Amino acid sequence: LTDYGIRAIDPRSGNPVGELLPATSESEVRTLVDAAVQAEGPWASATAQHRAEALRNIADAIDGAASAVVSLADRETALGEERLTSELARTTNQLRMFAAEIESGEYLGASITLAAPERGIPDLRRMNIARGSIGVFAASNFPLAFSVIGGDTASALAAGCPVVVKAHENHPGTSQLVLALAEAHLPHGTLGLCHGREAGLNLVDDPRIKAVGFTGSFQGGRALAARCASRPVPIPFFGELGSINPVVILPDAARTRANTIADGFTNSLLMGNGQFCTKPGLMFVPESSDIHAEVARIIARSESGTLLTPRIRDAYRTASREHAAPLSAHGRASAEALAVRPEIRTITAAEFCANAAAYTHEQFGPAAILVTYESDQSLIAALRLLPGALTATLHSDHSEPIEQTVTAALRARVGRLILNGWPTGVAVGLAQQHGGPFPASTDETTTSVGASALMRWVRPVAYQGWPDNLLPLELRAANPLNVPRRTEGLLATDST
Amino acid sequence: LTDYGIRAIDPRSGNPVGELLPATSESEVRTLVDAAVQAEGPWASATAQHRAEALRNIADAIDGAASAVVSLADRETALGEERLTSELARTTNQLRMFAAEIESGEYLGASITLAAPERGIPDLRRMNIARGSIGVFAASNFPLAFSVIGGDTASALAAGCPVVVKAHENHPGTSQLVLALAEAHLPHGTLGLCHGREAGLNLVDDPRIKAVGFTGSFQGGRALAARCASRPVPIPFFGELGSINPVVILPDAARTRANTIADGFTNSLLMGNGQFCTKPGLMFVPESSDIHAEVARIIARSESGTLLTPRIRDAYRTASREHAAPLSAHGRASAEALAVRPEIRTITAAEFCANAAAYTHEQFGPAAILVTYESDQSLIAALRLLPGALTATLHSDHSEPIEQTVTAALRARVGRLILNGWPTGVAVGLAQQHGGPFPASTDETTTSVGASALMRWVRPVAYQGWPDNLLPLELRAANPLNVPRRTEGLLATDST
Repeated sequence: LTDYGIRAIDPRSGNPVGELLPATSESEVRTLVDAAVQAEGPWASATAQHRAEALRNIADAIDGAASAVVSLADRETALGEERLTSELARTTNQLRMFAAEIESGEYLGASITLAAPERGIPDLRRMNIARGSIGVFAASNFPLAFSVIGGDTASALAAGCPVVVKAHENHPGTSQLVLALAEAHLPHGTLGLCHGREAGLNLVDDPRIKAVGFTGSFQGGRALAARCASRPVPIPFFGELGSINPVVILPDAARTRANTIADGFTNSLLMGNGQFCTKPGLMFVPESSDIHAEVARIIARSESGTLLTPRIRDAYRTASREHAAPLSAHGRASAEALAVRPEIRTITAAEFCANAAAYTHEQFGPAAILVTYESDQSLIAALRLLPGALTATLHSDHSEPIEQTVTAALRARVGRLILNGWPTGVAVGLAQQHGGPFPASTDETTTSVGASALMRWVRPVAYQGWPDNLLPLELRAANPLNVPRRTEGLLATDST
Repeated sequence: LTDYGIRAIDPRSGNPVGELLPATSESEVRTLVDAAVQAEGPWASATAQHRAEALRNIADAIDGAASAVVSLADRETALGEERLTSELARTTNQLRMFAAEIESGEYLGASITLAAPERGIPDLRRMNIARGSIGVFAASNFPLAFSVIGGDTASALAAGCPVVVKAHENHPGTSQLVLALAEAHLPHGTLGLCHGREAGLNLVDDPRIKAVGFTGSFQGGRALAARCASRPVPIPFFGELGSINPVVILPDAARTRANTIADGFTNSLLMGNGQFCTKPGLMFVPESSDIHAEVARIIARSESGTLLTPRIRDAYRTASREHAAPLSAHGRASAEALAVRPEIRTITAAEFCANAAAYTHEQFGPAAILVTYESDQSLIAALRLLPGALTATLHSDHSEPIEQTVTAALRARVGRLILNGWPTGVAVGLAQQHGGPFPASTDETTTSVGASALMRWVRPVAYQGWPDNLLPLELRAANPLNVPRRTEGLLATDST
């Protein structure tokens, strides 16, 4: 884990996996970016069909090597073959989704304002183009779906941007294997991979990198965001920095299905040993309900497996030791090397309101806080202190007068609002929003999952006064590529 | 111009205009933001038709008071009644354009992923919602179109966001007059106005402000951007910080129409005394052409009127005095108090390449640099050193082999690419892009002119698993508001 050598630790045994990989030097990072910059023009100007075919070929190659990829990823992360098999399918389906999305042409946002020469109005035609070379920081908890060829990379490649990935140090072997499978289907320089903390900083500092995608910790993300913002030419940093994902149980739902809710909550909490970005970290339950007692009973019987890395394990233990809220129940840690015990804390809404900042940090791993509320007013007061999050979940039978107020308070703070479900399980689809107000995302208008993830990597350019034959095909009068466009005369007129 | 009192200076006479306006105190700014926050819910949940009607009523009120507004604005800015009359029409047409745009529903970006229960895929419905209260910094050079009810404010109000404007200190009277005309047609708190530098900082620091729009100087913008980024909860800063707007004359165009080009360039340069954000500040001409000599002749005969403020006049003179390039021609300054003389500097492409940073700062006012190039190679080398800009302009007769390379080099650096025209004159239309790579904009994906300006003030929210009757009308199955939507089954499937 030092910068002169990177090697995964098997989280089950605590032993090293595979060979020591050298950290990528400053000049090697520069060479990777050189190659990316060389690839920019050809890749951006290739047809959508050409890029889509490359993405589908990569998907096929990874599917074809699934057992080798899953087996190595399991040794490096201990996430289990079942979960990793499903994550691999998600990753390759995601590549195919972005292929279909660029073929649809929707991401071009093409629009046309027709000339009105009598009023001095020129012909204006606007479309999105690729931003250029992108840096992507892989995440620890999804060695495939948020890593070398995960959502950030796949969406950037689809948009026409070369990518240099900074590998996550907990799965370097998987990263190298996936790189080899992918780069065989891409032009030279379109996809690069570097290892080590310093390499990541060199990548962010390279003046030719035009934007950065990141999924990771609040501290790391905030530091990289500041670094991007203070460059001589600042670049956007699309970071996902952690989320508390509040759940609110209204009294009517608590009365009719306390046990189902307690089961659903603990299942969502313990899934992947609490290492999902959408893990429900905070649940508000009526003081009078049985839910908190039932959750405590389930947690007391539970066993959690290993976490991903020694650092994540240590952070979990430190957070537990120093937590402001008292422990109300805990389960057992398995015998695996980096295992920790699941923990539940319970506080009142009044306690929550008195110190909300202390109770709204994400604790990565199988821990959550239950907040009991005794009145509508105390619930609303507490919700108004919630920070931004990826998701909020409401359980309601629609008979409570405060439902609408609660919904509005939650909606103001999140990117995805779930009714009578659970936040873990992020469907890869057109209407997905996996992003939310800070600190969930550094740019709440963006998503890192779903078709709109593409939009982070493009920017608009307007052509003024160009003859048809010199315009990009997407903007020509006959629309030969048949891309979706809005065309109209000026909505308002002026040329001041 | 101090913080205990603000008053415009008549740029023609140098005398104060009107009464001393008190600077807005910290607690007064807080009160304005209190009122904005109170207005957020009702304004955002009002129908698009309701908000559109308010915008149209404001437009009508300003049109109805046009002569009083233009007269006061002219005393405060000396931009002239003709220009200000046209700017007023642009401002009110812009309000009507945003009214029409929100009625179209396009800005909602509504999309639906249909549930696939057999694969565990929930119903997902996504749409854009208002971000909340917005801070807007008015510009010096457009006392109407980029001020109290200008493009930033109009687009934010249209999107459903209350706005608190920080007035520009060169037209406080006009700002107050326009505020009075506008706020009569808006709910209390939806539009507020503050004066003074400290008030602007307090506005940016208020934790309830969700985003900031700004048009102004590089130094001021960069400082405010850093302030927004380092808040405990960072907010987006949409700044337009200055642009050099390069023009490239290819040899074929130079041969066939040198005089027309020289006329067009100086006309665009001197328009508004060089105080447009799209002023062409840099023009590349073939060394062998007559264009630079002809421009010098026209400039030597020219007279420029007053600049907007003593500070702008002083900055212009300092930049002239300390300029790295030698003066090759100058005109006369009129007798008006803050008038300056137009200035042209000429350097070679080799000189440009040796010190590009010194020649690519915006000098606000009637000054520009001509760069002569002796070969295709020297032109291309120079273009690759250009910083980001709002616009680039190409003059070409399409017979030069380097046209495509030049176009690509320019497109990589700007938001609007103009052929055989001039950059001043920004049409307010659907396909306009008034924004570009840094430093032109702090977010190159956004525009401050045209329908897409709305998109800065909204963020997406996805609803998962909600019954039809509890969804916003825009997302219900029957689509009762008939908003544009994309609906489809999942493009890829997964619920990892």
